[in-house]
Amino acid sequence: MAVAVFSGSIDRLTGLAMLVSGAVAMGYEVELFLQLWGVYAFKKDIVKKNMNFSEFQDKAPEVAKRLQELNVPSWFDIIKEAKENGSVKIYACSAAASIWNVKKEDLELVDDIIGAATWIEKMSKADITLFI
Amino acid sequence: MAVAVFSGSIDRLTGLAMLVSGAVAMGYEVELFLQLWGVYAFKKDIVKKNMNFSEFQDKAPEVAKRLQELNVPSWFDIIKEAKENGSVKIYACSAAASIWNVKKEDLELVDDIIGAATWIEKMSKADITLFI
Amino acid sequence: MAVAVFSGSIDRLTGLAMLVSGAVAMGYEVELFLQLWGVYAFKKDIVKKNMNFSEFQDKAPEVAKRLQELNVPSWFDIIKEAKENGSVKIYACSAAASIWNVKKEDLELVDDIIGAATWIEKMSKADITLFI
Repeated sequence: MAVAVFSGSIDRLTGLAMLVSGAVAMGYEVELFLQLWGVYAFKKDIVKKNMNFSEFQDKAPEVAKRLQELNVPSWFDIIKEAKENGSVKIYACSAAASIWNVKKEDLELVDDIIGAATWIEKMSKADITLFI
Repeated sequence: MAVAVFSGSIDRLTGLAMLVSGAVAMGYEVELFLQLWGVYAFKKDIVKKNMNFSEFQDKAPEVAKRLQELNVPSWFDIIKEAKENGSVKIYACSAAASIWNVKKEDLELVDDIIGAATWIEKMSKADITLFI
Repeated sequence: MAVAVFSGSIDRLTGLAMLVSGAVAMGYEVELFLQLWGVYAFKKDIVKKNMNFSEFQDKAPEVAKRLQELNVPSWFDIIKEAKENGSVKIYACSAAASIWNVKKEDLELVDDIIGAATWIEKMSKADITLFI
């Protein structure tokens, strides 16, 4: 499964985390390519304080409260755990890294910074391709 | 065609409906996996009154008016008709069903509630995989 | 690579442009299918003045400024250049063209207006399928 992670909104990242966790549970290899807002959301200084929703912003408090009641871990903790237990590689787009002026060590969980052409090559070999 | 339906916004769901309708017309099997806002949008008490747009919110009235002038059915009616005429299976994500505290009978058109791992298995067999 | 371009927001279109450019660099054939907001964004009277962001709207000025500092071409110029240098076909969805009341000549870079069923056929032959 190869996913271009454009979004940095925590609702979409939670949807992604569920799929990553499911893929690891089934023994699939997962590769993520962080683009614009995806790189932003994985920045070490942003990851914990990001509260952005991509849609239905007025319902964000209700959903956040419900996730807490159900003890659902954060999108970040789900992906971190999946990475510890399975094959999950996380790449940041070099162009997006320039926009945010970050290096690999400024980002959580990122294995490498690569260009879009390298990513296309990886994506072309995947059974499941998504853009979130 | 296997689509992870994260969004619950009616503009994106209309885009989805067009693709589902096209796939059924070509004789393809379609499977949908409703995630967070997707489950919300298929709730029986929400489906008719949901007016949320994912982008260009200020243009929503113009688009809604134009869809009416052209007699385009709602996203829901297009998917319902595709399900009646072709092979369309709709699954709700079990985690998202917990968040909204809903059972299968609280949702329109849903065939089953399944986990993300089961969904990944289904998606890995599809020719076309999308995340909306 | 076959991408259903639902979004018309310039941040998502920039993410798309990076992938299109990478795919062309690797010698892949690219096909785009413009849906609702995608058709809007390719309208000749809109393409230059569209400033819509899909998420983190409050950070749009910061990102726009940074793209300028780095001399990153606009999403449109990146796709235009990719189309000049590689195999990139751009189709507009006939239903979306009706909504905006546009013909092929009202849209930039569009090769043809086609229906969703024809698009599904094209997408089913692609190695990489995405919905943005």
